[in-house]
Amino acid sequence: MKPGFLMVVSGPAGVGKGTLVSELIRLNEQTLLSVSATTRAPRPGEEDGVQYWFKDRQSFEQMIHEDQLLEWVEYCGNYYGTPVDHVTASVAEGKIVILEIEVEGALNIRRIFPDAVLVFILPPDLETLKKRLSGRGTEPEDVIYRRLKRAEEELSFLSRYDYFVMNVSIPQAVEKLTKIIDAEQRRVNRNPELVQRFQVV
Amino acid sequence: MKPGFLMVVSGPAGVGKGTLVSELIRLNEQTLLSVSATTRAPRPGEEDGVQYWFKDRQSFEQMIHEDQLLEWVEYCGNYYGTPVDHVTASVAEGKIVILEIEVEGALNIRRIFPDAVLVFILPPDLETLKKRLSGRGTEPEDVIYRRLKRAEEELSFLSRYDYFVMNVSIPQAVEKLTKIIDAEQRRVNRNPELVQRFQVV
Repeated sequence: MKPGFLMVVSGPAGVGKGTLVSELIRLNEQTLLSVSATTRAPRPGEEDGVQYWFKDRQSFEQMIHEDQLLEWVEYCGNYYGTPVDHVTASVAEGKIVILEIEVEGALNIRRIFPDAVLVFILPPDLETLKKRLSGRGTEPEDVIYRRLKRAEEELSFLSRYDYFVMNVSIPQAVEKLTKIIDAEQRRVNRNPELVQRFQVV
Repeated sequence: MKPGFLMVVSGPAGVGKGTLVSELIRLNEQTLLSVSATTRAPRPGEEDGVQYWFKDRQSFEQMIHEDQLLEWVEYCGNYYGTPVDHVTASVAEGKIVILEIEVEGALNIRRIFPDAVLVFILPPDLETLKKRLSGRGTEPEDVIYRRLKRAEEELSFLSRYDYFVMNVSIPQAVEKLTKIIDAEQRRVNRNPELVQRFQVV
């Protein structure tokens, strides 16, 4: 069996991470998206365990206190976090668990899972990113300015990542991600059983 | 430009390393084989700089003393070694320099070039390897025994390598090596210019 691992995917807003990850998961049946827990109310059509694990504040805070979350944030009055048990179980089953997460959270995850693979999604160039973040020119300047500042902040974390994938086209970028997965599965240190098997006695 | 690096390929005798490496180099124009220097006399048809750099003993020993060799051995009265200048220059040009070398040499190279990628070629299973090493049953038992012992010794180094590739079929194994190369070229730390380019100022 090929080994599973946790793959963290980050990158500035507007770079197409979401589409890229969805497409990867659609095409590669060994991959799956890590489902976050949240105290946000489900929107129409959202199902528990699909888009999110829906929790009340008390249960979420209990998960925090019991160290059951890989990372968590409070955002606009709601909690969001990644339950560790689901990730660990899926990796043990040989799954590539994809976690789409911002840069600060990604580095925290590296501390907890040193074997996680960190991939940074890049735009073709900075100009393209600036255009995408500026939108259709109908938004207030300060909103755009904050977005650009945040993109700059996120890009400053690039050097801490293992791999980069430039998103020029979705099919190409998915192929690059797939090659990274394939190579990582051939890492000797991810295959202790194999090492064992080839020790001639 | 995609970054170059040194790729060390090892594995027990009889595993098909040579064929695999030749095929990789034939198909991937970014790869090239590191040419060794030797004091062995050229055989008919061999050209300087193609199969080997042919040197006299004095020049070879001078290269040793001047630290111009990545590694060297004396074998059957002749010196064999890898000139460092050729490797460094080719890597700087963006080439993947392939060095086919035994395990002890490989670990030495890792010390000198920490960025080298070490790939171990494995047989499909131990039985296949034993059959291949036993030959056609026409060789003396002690020769076969020594070969098996050496294979055992080499396999004990597997855990020190970065990647493994199981050589079930040459085209498949070449594809796996190619994916490893592709992934390694997307490592953020091999692309300092890229990191520079995406620092928004």
